[in-house]
Amino acid sequence: MGQTQAALNLMPQPAQFTVGEGRLLIDGGFQVALTGVKEPTVEAAVKRMIARLSNSTGIPLTQALATEPAKATMVVQCGRLGGVVQKLNDDESYSLEITTQQAHLSAATTLGILRGLETFLQLVDLDAHGFGVPAVRIEDRPRFPWRGLLLDVSRHWMPIEVVKRNLDGMAAVKLNVFHWHLSDDQGFRVESKVFPKLQQIGSDGNYYTQAQVKEVIAYAHERGIRVVPEFDVPAHTSSWLAAYPALGSGPGPYEIGRHWGVYEPTMDPTREYTYRFLDRFIGEMAALFPDEYFHVGGDELNSAEWRGNRRIQAFMRHRRMKTAADLQTYFNQRLVRIVERHGKKMVGWDEVLRPGLPKDVVVQSWRGPQSLAAAAQQGYRGILSAGYYLDLMQPASQHYQVDPLGGAAAALSEQDQSRILGGEACMWAELVTPMNVDSRIWPRLAAIAEKLWSPKTVTDIDSMYQRLAVVSRQLEFIGLAHRSSGWLMLKRLTGPHPADSLARFDEVLEPVKGYAREKARQYTSLTPMNRLVDATLPESDAARQFAVLAADWKTNANEIERRLAEWRDSAINLLPMTKENALLEEQASIAENVRGISQAGIEALTYLRSDKAAPADWVKRQLDLLDTAAQPNAELLIVIVPSIRLLVQTAQAAQP
Amino acid sequence: MGQTQAALNLMPQPAQFTVGEGRLLIDGGFQVALTGVKEPTVEAAVKRMIARLSNSTGIPLTQALATEPAKATMVVQCGRLGGVVQKLNDDESYSLEITTQQAHLSAATTLGILRGLETFLQLVDLDAHGFGVPAVRIEDRPRFPWRGLLLDVSRHWMPIEVVKRNLDGMAAVKLNVFHWHLSDDQGFRVESKVFPKLQQIGSDGNYYTQAQVKEVIAYAHERGIRVVPEFDVPAHTSSWLAAYPALGSGPGPYEIGRHWGVYEPTMDPTREYTYRFLDRFIGEMAALFPDEYFHVGGDELNSAEWRGNRRIQAFMRHRRMKTAADLQTYFNQRLVRIVERHGKKMVGWDEVLRPGLPKDVVVQSWRGPQSLAAAAQQGYRGILSAGYYLDLMQPASQHYQVDPLGGAAAALSEQDQSRILGGEACMWAELVTPMNVDSRIWPRLAAIAEKLWSPKTVTDIDSMYQRLAVVSRQLEFIGLAHRSSGWLMLKRLTGPHPADSLARFDEVLEPVKGYAREKARQYTSLTPMNRLVDATLPESDAARQFAVLAADWKTNANEIERRLAEWRDSAINLLPMTKENALLEEQASIAENVRGISQAGIEALTYLRSDKAAPADWVKRQLDLLDTAAQPNAELLIVIVPSIRLLVQTAQAAQP
Repeated sequence: MGQTQAALNLMPQPAQFTVGEGRLLIDGGFQVALTGVKEPTVEAAVKRMIARLSNSTGIPLTQALATEPAKATMVVQCGRLGGVVQKLNDDESYSLEITTQQAHLSAATTLGILRGLETFLQLVDLDAHGFGVPAVRIEDRPRFPWRGLLLDVSRHWMPIEVVKRNLDGMAAVKLNVFHWHLSDDQGFRVESKVFPKLQQIGSDGNYYTQAQVKEVIAYAHERGIRVVPEFDVPAHTSSWLAAYPALGSGPGPYEIGRHWGVYEPTMDPTREYTYRFLDRFIGEMAALFPDEYFHVGGDELNSAEWRGNRRIQAFMRHRRMKTAADLQTYFNQRLVRIVERHGKKMVGWDEVLRPGLPKDVVVQSWRGPQSLAAAAQQGYRGILSAGYYLDLMQPASQHYQVDPLGGAAAALSEQDQSRILGGEACMWAELVTPMNVDSRIWPRLAAIAEKLWSPKTVTDIDSMYQRLAVVSRQLEFIGLAHRSSGWLMLKRLTGPHPADSLARFDEVLEPVKGYAREKARQYTSLTPMNRLVDATLPESDAARQFAVLAADWKTNANEIERRLAEWRDSAINLLPMTKENALLEEQASIAENVRGISQAGIEALTYLRSDKAAPADWVKRQLDLLDTAAQPNAELLIVIVPSIRLLVQTAQAAQP
Repeated sequence: MGQTQAALNLMPQPAQFTVGEGRLLIDGGFQVALTGVKEPTVEAAVKRMIARLSNSTGIPLTQALATEPAKATMVVQCGRLGGVVQKLNDDESYSLEITTQQAHLSAATTLGILRGLETFLQLVDLDAHGFGVPAVRIEDRPRFPWRGLLLDVSRHWMPIEVVKRNLDGMAAVKLNVFHWHLSDDQGFRVESKVFPKLQQIGSDGNYYTQAQVKEVIAYAHERGIRVVPEFDVPAHTSSWLAAYPALGSGPGPYEIGRHWGVYEPTMDPTREYTYRFLDRFIGEMAALFPDEYFHVGGDELNSAEWRGNRRIQAFMRHRRMKTAADLQTYFNQRLVRIVERHGKKMVGWDEVLRPGLPKDVVVQSWRGPQSLAAAAQQGYRGILSAGYYLDLMQPASQHYQVDPLGGAAAALSEQDQSRILGGEACMWAELVTPMNVDSRIWPRLAAIAEKLWSPKTVTDIDSMYQRLAVVSRQLEFIGLAHRSSGWLMLKRLTGPHPADSLARFDEVLEPVKGYAREKARQYTSLTPMNRLVDATLPESDAARQFAVLAADWKTNANEIERRLAEWRDSAINLLPMTKENALLEEQASIAENVRGISQAGIEALTYLRSDKAAPADWVKRQLDLLDTAAQPNAELLIVIVPSIRLLVQTAQAAQP
């Protein structure tokens, strides 16, 4: 068993596995028998698995739930009933043994069965004999118990379908926490019956009813996913204060935020009204959300309103508080008692980590791995999100190299390390809509999911990318739109013209990284997200593959030339469209650059094949052009620039 | 006003229009004001329109429902309230006037507003100034009052999502009747509370609950679509008889049908039990389905059971009935009284047209236009479906040339013609699944919809195809999967390899036509529908465009060569996959043929450019190859064969 074998087509890789001989065929006779405890969740999961298998193979499997284990293709054996509410540290382990005759999945709990069914589905492929799964023996369990995705539904509203299909995707890669960022300056997204103005005034009409919240929680529970709600206080609360201005520290009036960034509106921590309000509100939400954890945010406090309010200043002086952070600590100490009175454990962003914070608060680190290590050393449990921000458009490989126990945490004692519960990827929604959000989450989230589930030793980036391509295709069959809606967005841009050529062009582009887009122009929640940069994928597979080709031009010259010619032609096709289409106008100079550097690469190949060094003036012109093309333009980067620069430099250095 | 102007980007074309000067811009300030009667259906429709406009442009329109008509971009004025139940002949007319300042949509009824909103959405496009609609004045109304789609959900089960998205598509092209073929030999698809074994035994668990039926009816009603249920009797009833064998004319036992074709199991029209059953059943369904029409099928009776039943034979002798048709007429006479007692008007397939059929039965003609004309002449109202069978994989142009008042009906008196209510496209489900059904319906249904709505003079096929491409893309934004799920099916076929090359290859193919697939192999409802032929589109746009190029090789030589090279290369790429993939194995010889004839076309161009006639032996070899390639293979046709044959023949004839 172990990691020395070739990786299976699985993401995340299992803890332990041994590949056997042969395959178990999957055809119209596929049947699953359930043994062990009778558990409706397991039966429902098996039915979903059968439906997905039917969908991904095209084989009708209407009669696949069998009664006789001896005759079944697959036997599913569940040890004991799962809890009504999933808990942190619930057993998720399972065993899956596949022979050429039968697959046998067993687990102590429902959760393990859910994880094992996903493994089985990922193993299905098609060869010369038809669909099947390889003979294999897998013993699997997660490395970390808290493996999550935060979805911000405040800055851009995400309808329930978006949430559900992403829960399906999370389950497919064995994530187990959906962190639902439900309120922020730009919108309050849950129906409160106690304080209905929250959604009436704070949401622009875009919020989840309590029935929908229950529906999502049940949907997640069926897939082995806990739902942790976040109501971010005392800052990030413009939408609350628009509805209930008496909660604010300033004179008001307040309104829903439209721009991005850190706002001044902040709850007033010095008035008892605030705590009475939060007590009733958290009481209502604690009953709605069954999870034992409750996230109160606590990040990015702008103290302007506190500084400008005499009563608050007097309150601080009276209590000998020197800084806003001291006042926030006071607020948190009161808040944690409210949260606990309603039976919940509190989670907060790492700003809450201040002297006096009760030890049972869980700290979510977004500012860096140091705060996570610091928290663990001080006895707090923690979750890593720094390094897992999907909205920053970094490549999967970069996230893949972030380990919750890496960096400062690597030096911790084993006991301190054990307080690091895992991590959460974050999908902040400044620049996403329901149409492109899947493409910003997937497939990169699968790489983070592997980091949180698989053994620490699973680190091979090439293997990760190989398997990521497979899981990405599987996620399309689950219903995620990370590829299909990109096509729609390109079709929107090309109007009556076919979008194929723009898709080819778009292959060599990536959106600018980090917070560069928000610096490039003044975005608000009303800005249309319909430009090419909104459709462009965060990471260009074509550019990564091209870099491999360019590194060995002698072997790959023809293929390099073919691709460069395609990109050049796609740029030439695009140029006339930039004149007749308001949304593509900004692509004119990018298209010129792609055309130019593709041509440069082709010419470099000509010099290389001729075995003569390229003339110095030609080289200079191409390097100048590459420098120009390397600049961000319309918030896009041309990411084949380094590979073409390599070709030009190699042509320059060629020895006759 | 009128038809001499260039067609607008609309499908169906409106009855009358005048194009004005300039455009009305659509940006983030877009607002709609409602005037006229307060009607929740209209307000809901406007909200959906705004959401779709936002989706298709990417512009956030969260505050677009305005109160002041003077400031609104669009004013919607509805004359009077719509009925609770939509009726045949309800007024669907509307006026839409768009200036550079404002759009004004007015209609006497809700239905007209619904139609006009779809027109407005279809007009939206993108130019150098952004999104907008042209200034235009439209006066529109349908040519026929009954414009439908039949969806067979019995032979292959179609979940409610499939139904809903197709209702959205129907509304977009102004169809107004959803004919829901709910029972057949292969499955009974509605929950009956009176006779629950119908769904318990007759459906394999795949049926609509009554709550879901109501949901679909409400969804359709909101979109101006009547729902006409069909429960096909007395034949096509294996699934009923499996549940209630006492209804049958044979000894039983009966079971759900798995194969296709005409079955023997038939209800016994000689026993009172049958009529008591149908009376109670139709009573239940008449209450569930509010439409005034109720379809009882009546087609394809196989009289074997009647002939083999002594009691039935005695009954016929006693009543001096000579043929099975006489007995069916007796059954229909009793049936129509039952249907009418429950407040409905009966619709049946054209087999019901026999002496003695009450005149208020509506006859749906599937066997040919003659029966429609005959029915009209005899005083029956009729609906045309012959010529509109989407499952036969004919090109849109072929359906487009079928006019309900063409053929035999053209010779009828005006009064007789007025009994021809319209037509219905039929999507029979022997060879479709939820995954590919949209691609068999769309976009071809839009061409049929135009035939049923637009003036008789709208017949230009080139214009139709041009506009069909636009509406097809719009239908993708509505949520139809006619393009996206084809991609998924190709990805299923290529497994770990990219599907682009297979998509290119697939461009030159079409499924065999008519009933040729069912003759090619023994299909059943359990046959996987996962081969290339299941993904291949009914009509190849690429081949149609290539035929235009090939007809003028001198002008298009370079483009012809480029395309042929792409197809040849796609075939070469496919060949290795056919050896390692059980589903692509059957493509080996098709790939050889596509490779060979593409090469033949390229060589023909070489001869043509050389101005020398191609050698006779070369010509003979190519024509032989083309004859081979023209044969159906794996239920597919290579549809560029005629164009390449033309190139070869032109090269043969070239004069030096």
